[in-house]
Amino acid sequence: MKKIRAAVVGYGNIGKYTVEALEAAADFEIAGIVRRNASDIPVSLATYKVVASLKELEGVDVAILATPTRKVKEYALEALSLGINTVDSFDIHTQIPELRRTLAEKALEAGKACIISAGWDPGTDSMVRAILEACAPKGLTYTNFGPGMSMGHSVAVKAIEGVADALSMTIPTGQGVHRRMVYVQVKPGYDFAKIAAAVKADPYFASDETHVFQVESVDAVKDMGHGVDLVRKGVSGKTQNQNFQFKMSINNPALTGQILVAAARAVTRQKPGCYTLIEIPPVDLLPGERDYWVAHIV
Amino acid sequence: MKKIRAAVVGYGNIGKYTVEALEAAADFEIAGIVRRNASDIPVSLATYKVVASLKELEGVDVAILATPTRKVKEYALEALSLGINTVDSFDIHTQIPELRRTLAEKALEAGKACIISAGWDPGTDSMVRAILEACAPKGLTYTNFGPGMSMGHSVAVKAIEGVADALSMTIPTGQGVHRRMVYVQVKPGYDFAKIAAAVKADPYFASDETHVFQVESVDAVKDMGHGVDLVRKGVSGKTQNQNFQFKMSINNPALTGQILVAAARAVTRQKPGCYTLIEIPPVDLLPGERDYWVAHIV
Repeated sequence: MKKIRAAVVGYGNIGKYTVEALEAAADFEIAGIVRRNASDIPVSLATYKVVASLKELEGVDVAILATPTRKVKEYALEALSLGINTVDSFDIHTQIPELRRTLAEKALEAGKACIISAGWDPGTDSMVRAILEACAPKGLTYTNFGPGMSMGHSVAVKAIEGVADALSMTIPTGQGVHRRMVYVQVKPGYDFAKIAAAVKADPYFASDETHVFQVESVDAVKDMGHGVDLVRKGVSGKTQNQNFQFKMSINNPALTGQILVAAARAVTRQKPGCYTLIEIPPVDLLPGERDYWVAHIV
Repeated sequence: MKKIRAAVVGYGNIGKYTVEALEAAADFEIAGIVRRNASDIPVSLATYKVVASLKELEGVDVAILATPTRKVKEYALEALSLGINTVDSFDIHTQIPELRRTLAEKALEAGKACIISAGWDPGTDSMVRAILEACAPKGLTYTNFGPGMSMGHSVAVKAIEGVADALSMTIPTGQGVHRRMVYVQVKPGYDFAKIAAAVKADPYFASDETHVFQVESVDAVKDMGHGVDLVRKGVSGKTQNQNFQFKMSINNPALTGQILVAAARAVTRQKPGCYTLIEIPPVDLLPGERDYWVAHIV
């Protein structure tokens, strides 16, 4: 069987785990890794082609965009212009419709497909939310995140003057309400109390219960575990009190890398266009033939 | 907007809840109910056309087959020959591939579509299993059912001589292993001990831990609540110990009726062919436009 040739664009945390997931998937081969600095080749990439631009790679079926979220559109448009399908884990929920429209237009022109926001939230959690909406059309869904590190909140703290390093943990307190536990490493000569006040006043934190702590080393308290506790209680037809719950406790970038690889498989099976995961048949995420999964998993 | 015209075939437990779910769904109208005895019209159906055969109804977009599982194929083939899409909750896991092949052939001829096994298991649980398989391709999934009534096991007990009525409860003990708690109402003049021995020797029960109890009234201990605790622990890429859990506590026929209605919506959106739920994009189960759900649920 012909393998799917994937390029990984970006080699931060998610890029690293994406390469591992590709190495573990028998139906893929790695066409190469795209890095800004293509001469910086870590040992883990010694056997791969590392290049500065996607156009230096040959026969790429799909580009897995493991770039910062704000760079996704630019890299996706470049890949489509080269006639390459794309997947990404774009995670700014409010901007997903616009990204989908922009990429759909270009994808249709190129006769290629994109799957966007293919991480765990947005991503597989969105699929679960859609299924639960179908199971109980009236009711409330609460997505409780954590305990786990919030990248966005951590970056916001790092931007405050006097902060050497920071970790913002998201702690679920139920009904989609979250507490922020912030761990700050202070630069010499700065006042922790002032920094703590600045964190609490930041728009990222102002509306949440926020606790700020000073630590010697942020690195010493950082782990990449994360979790979700997604709850829906609702009405099926006219029957009340139907209860559903989806929970995960996972290594965050490892799950994101894995889902990107599953989406990279699925994108090769779609008609030209741009899709979110709720628009993809779940079986398309899995290797091999539909008939196998119908017989083994349904 | 033109409403989807649905016929409900069969008016047992699932048929009743399907009618309720249709009444609660703004994008559907009920074309009629098909019953073997069309002159038996309960109050709840007073405002609907009740007929003995699907061909007596006009302008039907989809037939929802709320018949016993063993009758699904026959009714689905009849509906397809009338040019009507079908959905069902066929639940004999091992026979799903064959049903899918048979109906696919007829559906392609008719230019119509079928969604089979669209209950909660097989059905939405299958979708969750597929998503978790994509999230952690190596590992084990255990589907723990209950506590709840097993129709198949209850019917098997009722077939034993001397049994007036019976209820078999499925109790999960973990790792997909189940205990059977059987409640039997004995006919006058029969020996409970003999009946209990016959239950334990029945192929439905022989390989499970089974406890049999005599009760005055099965009706007095029967409830239609059910549950699932679906667990997967596995490997994302090369990262071990990724943990996932999906739980439900639900009214069984109400959820089945609701999923059938969601599938009836989805079937009108598929190309001709026969599908299981893992082959359907989750968003197709939901009313209205894709763009709405992409903006609100992803």
